[in-house]
Amino acid sequence: MQVTMCPERAIMEHITSKWGVLVLQVLSDGGSWRFSALRRELEDVVSEKMLTQTLRTLERDGFVLRDVKPIIPPHVEYALTPLGQGAARHLVALAQWIEANQPEVSQAQRRYDAS
Amino acid sequence: MQVTMCPERAIMEHITSKWGVLVLQVLSDGGSWRFSALRRELEDVVSEKMLTQTLRTLERDGFVLRDVKPIIPPHVEYALTPLGQGAARHLVALAQWIEANQPEVSQAQRRYDAS
Repeated sequence: MQVTMCPERAIMEHITSKWGVLVLQVLSDGGSWRFSALRRELEDVVSEKMLTQTLRTLERDGFVLRDVKPIIPPHVEYALTPLGQGAARHLVALAQWIEANQPEVSQAQRRYDAS
Repeated sequence: MQVTMCPERAIMEHITSKWGVLVLQVLSDGGSWRFSALRRELEDVVSEKMLTQTLRTLERDGFVLRDVKPIIPPHVEYALTPLGQGAARHLVALAQWIEANQPEVSQAQRRYDAS
């Protein structure tokens, strides 16, 4: 298995990063999000700096479109590109799988902790 | 979106952790792996301590089976449980998607860096 840093590994790390996972899932609803709304949706657990950095990485990968609205005052909206939707689809599927199997995982954890 | 730490979020972090992603992918071949072989497959980039910790977390979640062979000298093999195969399937699909779309992502990165 190719483990040392290759382009694919780096992309995997961006998509599966702590905040990448959440941002891609939120944006997977297909809508456009302002920075502040996105941060609120993430329950303000993410710092502004980390959210900015996460969005920039995803924008650089071509997953997120940063749209500067030419209005006064100007504001910025974030949305998934078609490429980003492709990546997000797999995270959403994984999240749904986790939700469906969480009881079985929690049971395994209790069994492990009791042994 | 539920962001503060709930059971589902914790499971997502285990599956998408740096080494969790790789271990689940390696084990997804369906075989049993000895610790040393697994570590070699990961090109020794992961420390013994981190690999031990990753395997323990995945075992606790019920994803990995730790099988102690009663031979002399005893040895231990790791394999996915059916539950772990379910989780790994989504990571493998994501990895395949990344491999197929890596040229497009790299092109986006070059465009971003040039702008």
